Amino acid sequence: MARSPLAPDKLAHLPPVEGVRLAACEAGIRYAGRKDLMLALLDPGTAAAGVFTRSRTASAPVEWCRARVPGAGARALVVNAGNANAFTGMRGREAVEATAAAAAAAAGCGEDQVLIASTGVIGEALDPGKFTGKLAGLAQAADAAGWEQAARAIMTTDTFPKLATRKAEIEGVEVAINGIAKGSGMIAPDMATMLAFLFTDAAVAPAALQALCARAADSTFNAITVDGDTSTSDTLLLFATGKAAARGAPLLGEAGDPRLSGFAAALEDAMRDLAHQVVKDGEGASKFVEVAVEGAESDTAARRIAFAIANSPLVKTAIAGEDPNWGRIVMAVGKAGEAADRDRLAIWFGGIAVARDGEADPSYREEEAARYMKNREIALRVDVGVGGGRAVVWTCDLTGRYIEINADYRS
Amino acid sequence: MARSPLAPDKLAHLPPVEGVRLAACEAGIRYAGRKDLMLALLDPGTAAAGVFTRSRTASAPVEWCRARVPGAGARALVVNAGNANAFTGMRGREAVEATAAAAAAAAGCGEDQVLIASTGVIGEALDPGKFTGKLAGLAQAADAAGWEQAARAIMTTDTFPKLATRKAEIEGVEVAINGIAKGSGMIAPDMATMLAFLFTDAAVAPAALQALCARAADSTFNAITVDGDTSTSDTLLLFATGKAAARGAPLLGEAGDPRLSGFAAALEDAMRDLAHQVVKDGEGASKFVEVAVEGAESDTAARRIAFAIANSPLVKTAIAGEDPNWGRIVMAVGKAGEAADRDRLAIWFGGIAVARDGEADPSYREEEAARYMKNREIALRVDVGVGGGRAVVWTCDLTGRYIEINADYRS
Repeated sequence: MARSPLAPDKLAHLPPVEGVRLAACEAGIRYAGRKDLMLALLDPGTAAAGVFTRSRTASAPVEWCRARVPGAGARALVVNAGNANAFTGMRGREAVEATAAAAAAAAGCGEDQVLIASTGVIGEALDPGKFTGKLAGLAQAADAAGWEQAARAIMTTDTFPKLATRKAEIEGVEVAINGIAKGSGMIAPDMATMLAFLFTDAAVAPAALQALCARAADSTFNAITVDGDTSTSDTLLLFATGKAAARGAPLLGEAGDPRLSGFAAALEDAMRDLAHQVVKDGEGASKFVEVAVEGAESDTAARRIAFAIANSPLVKTAIAGEDPNWGRIVMAVGKAGEAADRDRLAIWFGGIAVARDGEADPSYREEEAARYMKNREIALRVDVGVGGGRAVVWTCDLTGRYIEINADYRS
Repeated sequence: MARSPLAPDKLAHLPPVEGVRLAACEAGIRYAGRKDLMLALLDPGTAAAGVFTRSRTASAPVEWCRARVPGAGARALVVNAGNANAFTGMRGREAVEATAAAAAAAAGCGEDQVLIASTGVIGEALDPGKFTGKLAGLAQAADAAGWEQAARAIMTTDTFPKLATRKAEIEGVEVAINGIAKGSGMIAPDMATMLAFLFTDAAVAPAALQALCARAADSTFNAITVDGDTSTSDTLLLFATGKAAARGAPLLGEAGDPRLSGFAAALEDAMRDLAHQVVKDGEGASKFVEVAVEGAESDTAARRIAFAIANSPLVKTAIAGEDPNWGRIVMAVGKAGEAADRDRLAIWFGGIAVARDGEADPSYREEEAARYMKNREIALRVDVGVGGGRAVVWTCDLTGRYIEINADYRS
């Protein structure tokens, strides 16, 4: 699979995060000749938080994790690619339990201290025997520099590994935030679930970590879409080892604590970076699109309108065709079902005023807009003219390549 | 544009409907060398009912019609193709008023007795001067046999005209129901709004006609989707001239009157026929797909799940690729946000049991399902295992041709 034209020029280099060691190996779950299993070991005292798919048919590993976060004392994270262990019934739950038992033995911890994620084909039984025997070796091999191999081991239809790192200060003590992610549809359940794992040495209590995680997810991973489809397996986990406490960072227990504001901003920034990388690896994507909506009745209404635009096949194909077809944006606004004043609606493509007050802008020249549409990154802005609600979401265009990938994938 | 492979072998031949005369002509609104304007004249005493787009950015003609149905005394219907008169602000309203005035003069009626629909490009001013001068000539030319030319005059990206006819009896008196429709995306607002107009000589009072119209729309035009997009202009109008009263048919004032049950069934059947034709002309469609959901918490929940499946780009591309990828159906069920019991979910492709009780069906053989997927018409059935709610919707597959049509359309 050719690397996405929107891929970053080079991969981020991730420094160590104190208290985190990683390793990956080939387990042959579905792929040959590549690593498809990763283990992260977490030092004692690690808090874990998470956000999961809203799917009503969530996978067995999602159910396992959901029951265990937020929580204290996470010690291991096991992720496999190639099989999502979703829609696998009782056998799916048994596979998760076998994985937890093997990882607990390898990490020297309890089964409830193991978190698990799986991505890949759904509806096929996952045979944990393929990898439970590898976990002890991975635990031995795990080191502080294993980020890139971990990011590569969780890929499915991804065309590049996704890594991000940020630094922040808490009361003058520097802490690190590292993250890896995978996903190239949003989200093709078949081989392209969205998974993201972030790790920090900050000392944050589980409930506060959960609040920070959920808030940052809202404006990052929950503000992206490739095809509007929702996977059975989407999983975001955030681990805080607390190791910075030894360097003087306070243990913080309230997400709203002002001492956490720099950390919260850096966390959101790291998540946004990873979320954008997921969109930029969208199946068949040739353009990265920001959709900003303002003037809505509420932020929730703005978000719904923004997603109606970002998920519209007609808007997305127009962008693929470099066609400044603002009529389709009007359509998508109307379809969202939220209040919008047709006679005050305004639309911009980048800095170009396209429409205002219910008509094409008098200054609008299609040639100028058509030129703008040739950019790799496109910004759409819409003012729906009824209030102060705003939202920003990100998507990619919809190309013939998306159809090829998804129509030809399995057969 | 090549005729859809799903087009009917031959067009339905529509008999006259007493009290209805039609004509069409070339007005050069956008197209050259084809008819793009139609006028239907309705005898005095015609009741009108309608169902319209739920878009919050509805077009000027939709607002005009919405204010006038249900109503008695409709005398004329004017429809143009090539310009939707949507997102055209004050000038849009003026164009509608000018059209109504010219049609009223041509038909010898009041302006409020004129109904109007427009389809085509949006956001460009519609110059009514292009066709108001043609209406008097159309009124003179109108005759009882003008159905096919009317159906052709309202086409935009349609690859075939859509016609249907049914007969019914009311108290032993035969009445006719004729319908024409257009639409090839559901609904590309740019050149492919869904319009449908039905005409009968039954004698039904406006409020009852409205109830019949809305009920039949619910299981027909509101149960189809091509791309999940909603036009600014979707319009369904139903006219009852009452001419059958002279042959002894009673004037009926209650939609629930048992004497109307045969008529109601025939009306729904005609609408379903037209609705299926719209799907079969879906942009790029190569397969017609029925999605039946049962076992949901309610009929509304079943409908939401059915549309989640029918609108999923991943399900639709799999069907295009003739890939029996039931994992994507599981995903779509999960994404609908309605109750579903993963461990009792069952899926059939045609008569083939694919999955049950949360796993692949033991009898399932992918070769058999792959063979079934080669059919032009595909039936998907899903039991979500929680209740008695059921719904059926129709869609088409999503092909590279859809992208070509919509990415290349304007530029």
